[in-house]
Amino acid sequence: MKKPFKYALQKLEREKVFRDPVHDYIHIQDRVILDLIDTSEFQRLRRIKQLGTSSYTFHGAEHTRFNHSLGVYEITRRIVSNFTRNYPSVSEHDGLWDTNERLLVLCAALLHDIGHGPFSHTFEGIFNTDHEQLTQAIITSPETEINQVLQGVSDDFPELVASVINKTYANKQVVQLISSQIDADRMDYLLRDAYYAGVSYGTFDLTRILRVIRPYNHQIAFDYSGMHAVEDYVVSRYQMYMQVYFHPVSRGMEQILQSLFARAKFCYLSDDIEMKYPAGLLKPFLEGTWTLKDYLRLDDHVMSSYFTHWLAEDDSILVDLAYRFLNRKPFKSILVTPDELVQLKTALNNELVAAGYDADYYFGENSSYDLPYDYYRPYNTSNKTQIELVTKTNQVVELAQVSPLVNALAGKVRGDHRLYFPKELLRRLEATAAPDLNEDQIMILAAYVTEHNDVTHHIQQRLF
Amino acid sequence: MKKPFKYALQKLEREKVFRDPVHDYIHIQDRVILDLIDTSEFQRLRRIKQLGTSSYTFHGAEHTRFNHSLGVYEITRRIVSNFTRNYPSVSEHDGLWDTNERLLVLCAALLHDIGHGPFSHTFEGIFNTDHEQLTQAIITSPETEINQVLQGVSDDFPELVASVINKTYANKQVVQLISSQIDADRMDYLLRDAYYAGVSYGTFDLTRILRVIRPYNHQIAFDYSGMHAVEDYVVSRYQMYMQVYFHPVSRGMEQILQSLFARAKFCYLSDDIEMKYPAGLLKPFLEGTWTLKDYLRLDDHVMSSYFTHWLAEDDSILVDLAYRFLNRKPFKSILVTPDELVQLKTALNNELVAAGYDADYYFGENSSYDLPYDYYRPYNTSNKTQIELVTKTNQVVELAQVSPLVNALAGKVRGDHRLYFPKELLRRLEATAAPDLNEDQIMILAAYVTEHNDVTHHIQQRLF
Amino acid sequence: MKKPFKYALQKLEREKVFRDPVHDYIHIQDRVILDLIDTSEFQRLRRIKQLGTSSYTFHGAEHTRFNHSLGVYEITRRIVSNFTRNYPSVSEHDGLWDTNERLLVLCAALLHDIGHGPFSHTFEGIFNTDHEQLTQAIITSPETEINQVLQGVSDDFPELVASVINKTYANKQVVQLISSQIDADRMDYLLRDAYYAGVSYGTFDLTRILRVIRPYNHQIAFDYSGMHAVEDYVVSRYQMYMQVYFHPVSRGMEQILQSLFARAKFCYLSDDIEMKYPAGLLKPFLEGTWTLKDYLRLDDHVMSSYFTHWLAEDDSILVDLAYRFLNRKPFKSILVTPDELVQLKTALNNELVAAGYDADYYFGENSSYDLPYDYYRPYNTSNKTQIELVTKTNQVVELAQVSPLVNALAGKVRGDHRLYFPKELLRRLEATAAPDLNEDQIMILAAYVTEHNDVTHHIQQRLF
Amino acid sequence: MKKPFKYALQKLEREKVFRDPVHDYIHIQDRVILDLIDTSEFQRLRRIKQLGTSSYTFHGAEHTRFNHSLGVYEITRRIVSNFTRNYPSVSEHDGLWDTNERLLVLCAALLHDIGHGPFSHTFEGIFNTDHEQLTQAIITSPETEINQVLQGVSDDFPELVASVINKTYANKQVVQLISSQIDADRMDYLLRDAYYAGVSYGTFDLTRILRVIRPYNHQIAFDYSGMHAVEDYVVSRYQMYMQVYFHPVSRGMEQILQSLFARAKFCYLSDDIEMKYPAGLLKPFLEGTWTLKDYLRLDDHVMSSYFTHWLAEDDSILVDLAYRFLNRKPFKSILVTPDELVQLKTALNNELVAAGYDADYYFGENSSYDLPYDYYRPYNTSNKTQIELVTKTNQVVELAQVSPLVNALAGKVRGDHRLYFPKELLRRLEATAAPDLNEDQIMILAAYVTEHNDVTHHIQQRLF
Repeated sequence: MKKPFKYALQKLEREKVFRDPVHDYIHIQDRVILDLIDTSEFQRLRRIKQLGTSSYTFHGAEHTRFNHSLGVYEITRRIVSNFTRNYPSVSEHDGLWDTNERLLVLCAALLHDIGHGPFSHTFEGIFNTDHEQLTQAIITSPETEINQVLQGVSDDFPELVASVINKTYANKQVVQLISSQIDADRMDYLLRDAYYAGVSYGTFDLTRILRVIRPYNHQIAFDYSGMHAVEDYVVSRYQMYMQVYFHPVSRGMEQILQSLFARAKFCYLSDDIEMKYPAGLLKPFLEGTWTLKDYLRLDDHVMSSYFTHWLAEDDSILVDLAYRFLNRKPFKSILVTPDELVQLKTALNNELVAAGYDADYYFGENSSYDLPYDYYRPYNTSNKTQIELVTKTNQVVELAQVSPLVNALAGKVRGDHRLYFPKELLRRLEATAAPDLNEDQIMILAAYVTEHNDVTHHIQQRLF
Repeated sequence: MKKPFKYALQKLEREKVFRDPVHDYIHIQDRVILDLIDTSEFQRLRRIKQLGTSSYTFHGAEHTRFNHSLGVYEITRRIVSNFTRNYPSVSEHDGLWDTNERLLVLCAALLHDIGHGPFSHTFEGIFNTDHEQLTQAIITSPETEINQVLQGVSDDFPELVASVINKTYANKQVVQLISSQIDADRMDYLLRDAYYAGVSYGTFDLTRILRVIRPYNHQIAFDYSGMHAVEDYVVSRYQMYMQVYFHPVSRGMEQILQSLFARAKFCYLSDDIEMKYPAGLLKPFLEGTWTLKDYLRLDDHVMSSYFTHWLAEDDSILVDLAYRFLNRKPFKSILVTPDELVQLKTALNNELVAAGYDADYYFGENSSYDLPYDYYRPYNTSNKTQIELVTKTNQVVELAQVSPLVNALAGKVRGDHRLYFPKELLRRLEATAAPDLNEDQIMILAAYVTEHNDVTHHIQQRLF
Repeated sequence: MKKPFKYALQKLEREKVFRDPVHDYIHIQDRVILDLIDTSEFQRLRRIKQLGTSSYTFHGAEHTRFNHSLGVYEITRRIVSNFTRNYPSVSEHDGLWDTNERLLVLCAALLHDIGHGPFSHTFEGIFNTDHEQLTQAIITSPETEINQVLQGVSDDFPELVASVINKTYANKQVVQLISSQIDADRMDYLLRDAYYAGVSYGTFDLTRILRVIRPYNHQIAFDYSGMHAVEDYVVSRYQMYMQVYFHPVSRGMEQILQSLFARAKFCYLSDDIEMKYPAGLLKPFLEGTWTLKDYLRLDDHVMSSYFTHWLAEDDSILVDLAYRFLNRKPFKSILVTPDELVQLKTALNNELVAAGYDADYYFGENSSYDLPYDYYRPYNTSNKTQIELVTKTNQVVELAQVSPLVNALAGKVRGDHRLYFPKELLRRLEATAAPDLNEDQIMILAAYVTEHNDVTHHIQQRLF
Repeated sequence: MKKPFKYALQKLEREKVFRDPVHDYIHIQDRVILDLIDTSEFQRLRRIKQLGTSSYTFHGAEHTRFNHSLGVYEITRRIVSNFTRNYPSVSEHDGLWDTNERLLVLCAALLHDIGHGPFSHTFEGIFNTDHEQLTQAIITSPETEINQVLQGVSDDFPELVASVINKTYANKQVVQLISSQIDADRMDYLLRDAYYAGVSYGTFDLTRILRVIRPYNHQIAFDYSGMHAVEDYVVSRYQMYMQVYFHPVSRGMEQILQSLFARAKFCYLSDDIEMKYPAGLLKPFLEGTWTLKDYLRLDDHVMSSYFTHWLAEDDSILVDLAYRFLNRKPFKSILVTPDELVQLKTALNNELVAAGYDADYYFGENSSYDLPYDYYRPYNTSNKTQIELVTKTNQVVELAQVSPLVNALAGKVRGDHRLYFPKELLRRLEATAAPDLNEDQIMILAAYVTEHNDVTHHIQQRLF
């Protein structure tokens, strides 16, 4: 299945480089990569933040998906360049690197996030978009510039790129470079998010990992000698989730965003509420008639501009939520255990209603869980999940078997479940007896305000 | 003139810190500083990029004025903390640090850029706003949240903060910490812009400078022992201007932005052109009736959202310019000497017209010059400009006198003058003889495309 | 027990700073600290490497104990400066920081390693010195310059400093800053050894830890909010032990050193061997009559100079071992399990004898184990070992209870047991059948040379 | 002249890497490089400090020539790898890179400092050794291990390597990579010395320089686009000389070392002085009969061990100087202008004599000058000295013509001339009137002690 890549031959006369704070330089060697970067769909990623609401907690983290996509491309390029030099396949059965895959994997790396829109996860919940499907559509639909560029390689090239991203491509090595427990995507975002947030937790020894990553038996594996670098990567990933990605304050901003989207939808669709500002680019989404073209017009800037306009609307809930989001007034939260979930939800809702809040918009429930490291799953033979090490004598060992740190994290989901509500509720709780809460619960919530010394450690940990 | 700062006493019970990639932590110790950060006017800085169009050249540099303002505050805080410990004034005539100025200088540092709007310099040229006047207005106008917070310190506190920023405040030490050749503003932006752009040129030894900066004779000076660190700062500043701030490609994006604003204004004001999208938040600016409130509604996101909407307008020039800006298609440029300026401008304009371009929007002229280091100016006794070093024996030496590097840069403006035009013009020049250009000039312009080896070095340097 | 520290008042007129690659600057504020650094006993630390034979594996790690001692002092100084500002004791029972302890803890920090000699651990095994006892002696003996300087503070000051270092000092906070599971000593060496070795494993967020460390209830504890930084420190420490301090190659050099010392002793003491080079400074150690003065004349340079001289001696074993050490020819090793230890030792010894080696000098056994994190030990109330976190509500939590990573490491020793022998033995094993080894064992040893694919993973891991 | 390099074919089966704090990894790909590193002559560099007495000023800078030699090799390897990929010569006249030179230039890079001995410059002045001649000898003499390894490549290979180092090799590109104004040697030592000293001045953008360096017209040049990176390198070099290499305190230690060597020589050769400690390894140098073998036995450790032994000699000057050196008691200095040199020397000498010092050992004169950047010298056609840039259109420009910073430094020597003397002299000067010094001069010298405010700035700058 050796395809002729006509475009592939179009190497740039002179390699171009982009300065990058994480990788020093991004190296562009192919005309098709440069042309993809120049498309309007890719340039649009400059207007979509990588970390959504996290920059409200870590103010340095204002970087975009454009920035990250270039990074994933660059890491992939370095890996492939290493594979080509050191592990080129010479027969169909050696399980090594098929050098013909180079351009395909580079394009897939660059475009893996192309379907993301503004505040993807929250937006999708309200407007029924799906960034993974949209990634496929942007690559395969003839109406995009990206598709046109990819067609220049070969007629079936867009479909091939799309299949790598959705993991159906036959060569698993190509897929695993982009999507696995230690892929170019994750390696870039850990380093990049740590760099921009200004935290040290996300750092690991990329140079070392790039030395020990290798094709092996039709899969991606790592030299055993790099075990500690890979272990360090898993630990870093865990720490970034616990300390940055799951930060309760960022999630408090996300809750506001979700309520804001929901209320805007409600207002536009309601016959009773007159909106001053036209629905404009949002209209097809409110009406459920959106097309790919409509989707590609959206970005963080467009959404933020709507928020600013909504400040002048008449609906007080819409105005309030827009103000809270634009001016960083996150909902506060309390961590809940499964046992007390139902009771505490009811109590909080009652309190909100008593205080005059519409609980549909002023109460939120947020679960953030991650599986820091996944074991091998015997029932799922098609998709390898574990990280494998290859010894000098060509034995394969699974990472958690030799790393006590990884073993401690393996197979267990980590994270928490929180209930969100406006900070103002706390003041009220302090002032009045809340009939539906027991003493313990009032104490938990009131601890924000009063900072009493008599709440137990267990309680103290739960507040944010 | 020792004022009672009632607010000043309101220290936070517990210092708050914000993670910062440049300074590790921003330390907040005062209630008033936290309240200022929480205002809508300050939060708005999250939506205004620090470097405008530079992120189109250095993709990592996506940070905002929010980010930078916190940094200026933090550097100032560290300096003041050092002054308070080591150089407190004990008599009116000792020229040392008046510890009562602490809160004033911190607020001025935090708010020094508060009047900036979206793409300030370009926007101001078209819509007659002035970010320095607006900074004064935001601080002193009773309608802003910032003013309300500052009033909490004392009735005259807003005016005092504003006077520090506009350099009329009597205590020059306070002014110089915010505005001088080596102030907290410049120190932060050099380090920060270098960090985000991923270049090493802007780095200098901030720790050392913070050790040697000192109040001296009612001014700010530096211990002689820190001469090399200060010299290094001046050299870094020069290098950042030459290599980052004046980059021809960023300026090529600025030219497009300027034409885009101008064309939008033309279209909205023209009776002949029907605009589909309402002028909305821009209306008061188009009509010259804007108020402070109108100005505070603008940000990069709002502007960018207009650009996106304009893609659907009927005016082909507006559509084209919006497309070029959103999708990073910078104008190309040629460096010109004063001698050939008139002739080359005429020739290029003729070519543009012949090619069917409206030269009002497709031709640009851009001068970028900076004075890397300014000597003492004897005629200007009120505003010290040079950097002074104090020896162990209390002699004062001007920096350029002892540093050959600074001396090489002193008193000379550096930069260039460029003419901008669409890249497409080059293709045309190649294809057809251009009657108004002589052979040499065609060769210059065509060198982009043809990359002929027979253009001289002098010419080669001029293209971008 | 408030002592008058007359010396303590002798602050330097102007703080002195030493440039340091790890902490940027070491700040010296007291005359006594400067005088201690200037003593011959402290300057001698410039000639004693911090990591012994590790620089044979990590060539960058050539730093000395002088370097590290300044670093421990600096970290302690920063902690104490924080404690003095934020947690000064106001009553005997508040468990906070007694500001009178400042100079004492700084001196103890600076001098904690003063008794180290050349290649301490190996040297001690052969010559019966003890660096901990020597540290006490150097501080308390009137014949040293250090004692003289300390006496300048007060008559009992040397004894006080010595008691902090040997952990008998009454105030446990002072002791724990220098010796505990997370003390200034460990924090400095992890960062410093990582910096010089060029590995990233040892890095953790010192700035954060210095913010959250605090006196609490007459002990040292950490704010709960810094849990992840402390967790990261424990993980870093574990990784440095596994990857740097226990590196089998460095231990292979240590084995040679041990044999070299032993053989030199044998030769000097033997009546049959005539040494050309006089025992000189080693004589009192060979004869077991050494004094403190004799010990203070030794350093890495003196020892290394003996090695060079021994190259010209007649004893072939001495010459060979000196050559191996000076020219980095480490013994090779095999990892052994308790089960096979006896049999493998016997076999290897037989092989060595058969090959003509004197097994007393050409065979080594090395155990390297560390307890990455130690739990609370209820039976040992005097010496706290665990790391404790203090919540906002003043609850105390033990670190391993809230960190899965630390929990995975807690209470378990990590490391290995290895047998060492000359590389040349492997060549022999390959060539000849070794009668005392079974097939499996030959395969293990021969794997170095043959790199056969049929040794199992279990075996492969064991070789170095 | 294509030579057959038989050794060249012996690539290692698997690339070996050494961790390096400056370059991350040193990559070894050839058996011959590994074998050279393993020789005793190369391992000896582990015992010779890179910066001599500078570690007495910058305590972090304890790295050795071993460390640096690996770095020079690695930079050269990266350059050559780039040249081979991008600029392979295809005809004799294209002036590009002859790929056959690879192994030759790598060996020359690794061995360029192999002839250095302990405290080279000072030692050479007293004992008439010459490290450049010794480098040639070590490479070409059949008695060294290095020569044996190089012979394994080809019979004439040692001579070829030696000729590259002494700049007589025909291919100037090869020579210039090792010795020119911007060569692998200088690039490594600037970065490395800055890293270990902990200063930021020596840093420049090596990655960028490695991208723009290129063979051009049988010479080494740089792409014009890298001008600012090269400029930054020149500025960094200047700053390292001014602030690190020429530091007056390090030179004060060098003066003591020089006196110490001289006095030891005097004592050993004198009939009147009985030395307790045998001359041993120094004997052939004292008697002027040393051979290469004798020289290779010396290192910093051996010398330092002599110093320690000399502490027990009877000659009071020898003891005193050894004590000063081992315990870091540098001579103090005063900067002198040519005008006052004679008079001040006389005066100082008289004072020393009056105070009972032997001026032959307690007075020193030290000039440290460097030419930060050298212009083209038309009369010297064989050795290019300037740095040249190649534009896109293949024009060559000399760096100083386009960089104002480099131009400010070009062609001018920088440095100073100082007189050295014991610190104790200052105390005497303060106490007594010095008849041979005028008031101004006494004031200069006394300023150390008295710190009078009435010495002028001119004077203040001169003291150290």
